[in-house]
Amino acid sequence: MNDVLQQLGVLLEERKTAAADSSYVASLHAKGLNKILEKVGEEATETLLAAKDASISGDNRDLIYETADLWFHSLVMLSHLGESPQAVLDELARRFGLSGLDEKAARSKD
Amino acid sequence: MNDVLQQLGVLLEERKTAAADSSYVASLHAKGLNKILEKVGEEATETLLAAKDASISGDNRDLIYETADLWFHSLVMLSHLGESPQAVLDELARRFGLSGLDEKAARSKD
Amino acid sequence: MNDVLQQLGVLLEERKTAAADSSYVASLHAKGLNKILEKVGEEATETLLAAKDASISGDNRDLIYETADLWFHSLVMLSHLGESPQAVLDELARRFGLSGLDEKAARSKD
Amino acid sequence: MNDVLQQLGVLLEERKTAAADSSYVASLHAKGLNKILEKVGEEATETLLAAKDASISGDNRDLIYETADLWFHSLVMLSHLGESPQAVLDELARRFGLSGLDEKAARSKD
Repeated sequence: MNDVLQQLGVLLEERKTAAADSSYVASLHAKGLNKILEKVGEEATETLLAAKDASISGDNRDLIYETADLWFHSLVMLSHLGESPQAVLDELARRFGLSGLDEKAARSKD
Repeated sequence: MNDVLQQLGVLLEERKTAAADSSYVASLHAKGLNKILEKVGEEATETLLAAKDASISGDNRDLIYETADLWFHSLVMLSHLGESPQAVLDELARRFGLSGLDEKAARSKD
Repeated sequence: MNDVLQQLGVLLEERKTAAADSSYVASLHAKGLNKILEKVGEEATETLLAAKDASISGDNRDLIYETADLWFHSLVMLSHLGESPQAVLDELARRFGLSGLDEKAARSKD
Repeated sequence: MNDVLQQLGVLLEERKTAAADSSYVASLHAKGLNKILEKVGEEATETLLAAKDASISGDNRDLIYETADLWFHSLVMLSHLGESPQAVLDELARRFGLSGLDEKAARSKD
């Protein structure tokens, strides 16, 4: 797995400053926060519908695809507001006592 | 960071079979898919509201907290439907040409 | 006011059977329930964002517009599942002891 | 039917100023806009899930109940922001050329 979200966070920062007509991510940033949040809400809805369908069909492919869309657009949202995926992963690690909590981030919360 | 989501996936599988009165995760599974999806929808809404508030206050703490809630409950949803976080991370890695794509998972999609 | 939702319910039933290429409503029905529910979820998100913005700007125009979109698409959803707006209005009237509860509908719930 | 939403709008205005411990509506207003919008988002999710279940079971009772919850909480949202249900009904009447458009409201949009 090796930190897919961390790599994706770096990639999203690069695309944030790309020309809006050359990148979907840059075009979302150009349209502003409401447009990004509309996408998060839209993908949340599609994830719920895919989960209901998967529970009947037993086929999880759409569910995986829609959940990826949901996580991706929530990463764009974090990036738009100057936040990294790591801050969210650190919060999850803290809650569940998982290893790998970034030392610096942990200290800054003291 | 070191694979927080992967560790969390393992932990969620363990708690899935715990007694419902001893674990929040087990109690969600006992209540069934609709209850889990209601939580995903609820946390998506709270994430949107926190993002709007953060864009005005400049304080991202609630945003991080609510996004962690959203990701967490989407992991419980995946677990309930027999799916791992890795399937979603593989889909994101595939889309963006990131390294770390699980070899076995990648081959199974051929 | 005079029963705008009731008139709209009648109009939606007429358009349900129109050619899909001649009517937005007919095209939604042709695309199926998931598409209609995606629109309901999308409009719910846009309503929340408009409400947050209205609370700051003091301008309710977008809020009115998005709430109309939300109610409209929930009426299409009801129509798709063979239900009338009146059933929802009767439920609201029953809860709040309002007059105007349709006698026949009320009796059918005994 | 006779204007259930209009009657409900009047009732909601009365309860807006009731003591928070004596009325669910007053307690929502006291908790503020975010709490009201969380309820709108929550009821939108429950409506989608009820619609999916109704499409399989053929039983619309939960769908009617959840849609009533969604409309009710969107009315509380409008009231919180100083808006009436009539403004939304006027917008729907205007779009679809329905009779009953409030004359004064219609003129104010010219």
